[in-house]
Amino acid sequence: MGYPKEEKILEFLHDKNLIVASNRGPVEFHKHKNQIEMKRGAGGLVSTLLPLMEALNGVWIASAMTEEDATVAKGYSDNRVPITLEDPKFWMSFVLADEKQYEQYYSVISNPLLWFVQHYMWNTPYTPDIDDHIHQAWKEGYERINQKFAEKVVLESTRNEKDPLIMLQDYHLYLCPHLIRKKLGDIFLSQFIHIPWPQSEYCKIIPEYMRNAILEGLLSNDLLGFHIPRYVHNFIQSCEYFADEVDYQQGIVKYDGHSTQVKSYPISIDYDGIKDMARSKGVLEKEKLIRQIKGDKFLFYRTDRADLSKNIIRGFKAFDLFLDKHPEYWGKVKFLTTGKPTRQQIKEYEKYSQNVKDIIEEINNKYSREGWKPIEWIFKADYHLVIAAFKNYDCLIVNPIADGMNIVPKEASAVNEQQGVLILSETAGCYEELEENVLTVNPFDISQTAEAFYRAVQMDKEERSIRLKNLKDIIKKRTVYHWISEQFEDIEKLTSA
Amino acid sequence: MGYPKEEKILEFLHDKNLIVASNRGPVEFHKHKNQIEMKRGAGGLVSTLLPLMEALNGVWIASAMTEEDATVAKGYSDNRVPITLEDPKFWMSFVLADEKQYEQYYSVISNPLLWFVQHYMWNTPYTPDIDDHIHQAWKEGYERINQKFAEKVVLESTRNEKDPLIMLQDYHLYLCPHLIRKKLGDIFLSQFIHIPWPQSEYCKIIPEYMRNAILEGLLSNDLLGFHIPRYVHNFIQSCEYFADEVDYQQGIVKYDGHSTQVKSYPISIDYDGIKDMARSKGVLEKEKLIRQIKGDKFLFYRTDRADLSKNIIRGFKAFDLFLDKHPEYWGKVKFLTTGKPTRQQIKEYEKYSQNVKDIIEEINNKYSREGWKPIEWIFKADYHLVIAAFKNYDCLIVNPIADGMNIVPKEASAVNEQQGVLILSETAGCYEELEENVLTVNPFDISQTAEAFYRAVQMDKEERSIRLKNLKDIIKKRTVYHWISEQFEDIEKLTSA
Repeated sequence: MGYPKEEKILEFLHDKNLIVASNRGPVEFHKHKNQIEMKRGAGGLVSTLLPLMEALNGVWIASAMTEEDATVAKGYSDNRVPITLEDPKFWMSFVLADEKQYEQYYSVISNPLLWFVQHYMWNTPYTPDIDDHIHQAWKEGYERINQKFAEKVVLESTRNEKDPLIMLQDYHLYLCPHLIRKKLGDIFLSQFIHIPWPQSEYCKIIPEYMRNAILEGLLSNDLLGFHIPRYVHNFIQSCEYFADEVDYQQGIVKYDGHSTQVKSYPISIDYDGIKDMARSKGVLEKEKLIRQIKGDKFLFYRTDRADLSKNIIRGFKAFDLFLDKHPEYWGKVKFLTTGKPTRQQIKEYEKYSQNVKDIIEEINNKYSREGWKPIEWIFKADYHLVIAAFKNYDCLIVNPIADGMNIVPKEASAVNEQQGVLILSETAGCYEELEENVLTVNPFDISQTAEAFYRAVQMDKEERSIRLKNLKDIIKKRTVYHWISEQFEDIEKLTSA
Repeated sequence: MGYPKEEKILEFLHDKNLIVASNRGPVEFHKHKNQIEMKRGAGGLVSTLLPLMEALNGVWIASAMTEEDATVAKGYSDNRVPITLEDPKFWMSFVLADEKQYEQYYSVISNPLLWFVQHYMWNTPYTPDIDDHIHQAWKEGYERINQKFAEKVVLESTRNEKDPLIMLQDYHLYLCPHLIRKKLGDIFLSQFIHIPWPQSEYCKIIPEYMRNAILEGLLSNDLLGFHIPRYVHNFIQSCEYFADEVDYQQGIVKYDGHSTQVKSYPISIDYDGIKDMARSKGVLEKEKLIRQIKGDKFLFYRTDRADLSKNIIRGFKAFDLFLDKHPEYWGKVKFLTTGKPTRQQIKEYEKYSQNVKDIIEEINNKYSREGWKPIEWIFKADYHLVIAAFKNYDCLIVNPIADGMNIVPKEASAVNEQQGVLILSETAGCYEELEENVLTVNPFDISQTAEAFYRAVQMDKEERSIRLKNLKDIIKKRTVYHWISEQFEDIEKLTSA
């Protein structure tokens, strides 16, 4: 399947009951022409774990995200659906929640409350207001849905004689491990957090009883993973007031008679997979459009969900400043942006999407002339189009305020064919791996970012070529399979100890 | 004068050339009825250092804050004014700057940029935009005015044969120590920072070259003081990337062949002084007004400059929620607030003052009825009135998002005569000293703050009385004279070592 030490991993896993839980699952059901269809998701977690799921007949627990998920789920006992329906290889166990409950869990507590704290994004003099609405959402939404997930995990863990191997995912499920531990006692629990963990003082925005519950939850895991050492360090620091003992050197936190190993596993990409994809008919088809947009221009590119952490507005302010300072590049550069609004049910996101749209229009109005519009925005970008753009940009900009990892720079550099320059903010998770071959920006510094645009258009082909080659070498060496294999290795060590 | 070990201190100081530098000085000149008058400032720094200044014929370097400061200063060589003009005891050395320069230094870099970072107050998805305007303000304003202060310090240090004892104050003068050190080499330099120091990641909002210059400045001091151990720890953490060596245990940071002792000195109040003031005619006079406002009601009180760090809006949202949940207290409580707008030339402050005004009006409109208006706002509060309010409140609320120390809880508890309850946020610098005798709030938690209001009105007189007595005992034990004496003791140790 592509894992390093694959035989060893399969040997360890073969008698395990693999149970993965994440808010969003690897498959979703949708209605298409009056038929219910199954769609498979993308992303590192799905691409690495799904082959194992299938090999081991495991179970993936996730929220029902669509009406059809719920409809299908209700047709099976315990809402446990064989995937695929026709050729069952593993199980999807759907967690059903009523709309209000899900909204409280997802759109009040997980986002924006936790997400904004973990990305340092609150406007503290004004937001958040921790009011009854939030306290209630914690109790009636976040706690209850975590309870539901925990019940599913418990059910699946005791379904057969195999040793359960439980892998919880991300910030939606902070309370799960403690709830499972209470029921199942001495069972192995692991969790991976895909977003940053901030330093301890900023965490204090969250009321203490919630923070305590989150730490009690996370410290019920035997293994807790983050992307990079900085988040591990910050997490351990956040435990200082709560835990019995912390050890930064060993990455161990002791609480209530239990030890948690905290460790970093930087996620990466399926290097060969994306290279193959880049050669596929679908991508070649989309390249026509990209080449048409690019023409003979220097192509800047960015692709992001319109999340506030992505810092899209300052990116465009910098582009504005670059054009303002360098009229000699009017008509000679083009900025392509793909990606669409996200989490529009949350007011902060709705406003942000609008602000992004406004600044793009403003810049286009300011600089456009006969035959040239500086920014092209493709709203509904599919993955093939994105890969096509990755192949063809001259400069990619990734300038988040904070970002767990961000694999866009890795995917993009892997397939780029234009000696593309990478502008990367020092606060992205992937920065530590890539910093020597990028143009570094402080995400808040618009002047510096505009200067980076200028450096990119000025950079000679040789320097561009060396930088890109170095990036490709780094990215090739550590794939997403290393990310998952290292977790399995540590799980094996910890369970056999 | 009130210092512990006063003789020892004076013995150490008697042959010293005392040089204090702070942006705002202890005296200002104002025009009154066509006459230039001198006004003396308040605050712990002034009240403790001024008697020593006078005893030692020292010099205080400060920005000219008023037109009259500049006019008077220009009449003396080196803008060095004897204070008082008629009966000279010490010198005010005024730093003159043109308006633009001062605005860049004060209203762009010091506030909001540094102040907002040090209080965790930026709305990071949108602000700050570090643009050319800010880079320019750093270079043309902050650097240059620091240069001017440094030149004054150098001039004063070499004016006579005495050993100079240099005490720099606060975040306006971060670059001074390095500039002085470059000129004077092996001279003793100390600086005290009156605002919080945040954890290292949040500091990264500031561009690296500015951060480096700030650290290079601060690490040119021999002694660097903060209010509490948490800020000391955070500062040392912020130095990790920059310094050659850091020692958290000893509070020592080594950089460029030089050691800086970093230590906490929690500022306090002149306990006896404020008790005397509370008995003064001026205060007794103002108490009539306070008693009239209070009537037979339970009196809530707050007093703050309208700074965004003070969290005034959430305080009133909590009061609104308290009234909403407890209509039985309508007509039985009164909320008095004093304090006025501040830094109105900065747009964030202008907006905040307006927002404070709006919420007060909104609450008054919502609940007022015949004979009862819930909130009374006295816009132009003088110190006598504030002390009169301190004596008479039933509950004081101090709920900043972040606050270097905040001596209001100490001054207020010292003179309160109503067994007044103290609601205090866990993020205020003074919280660590007082926590056991206050109602603790998370400043972001409106529900909890409303609940604290309810607990305050419900609390029986005996509990109130015990809590206040404990507060008074703590505050009495450590006065502002301890704060300054400890600094002198450490300076003596460090210079004689």
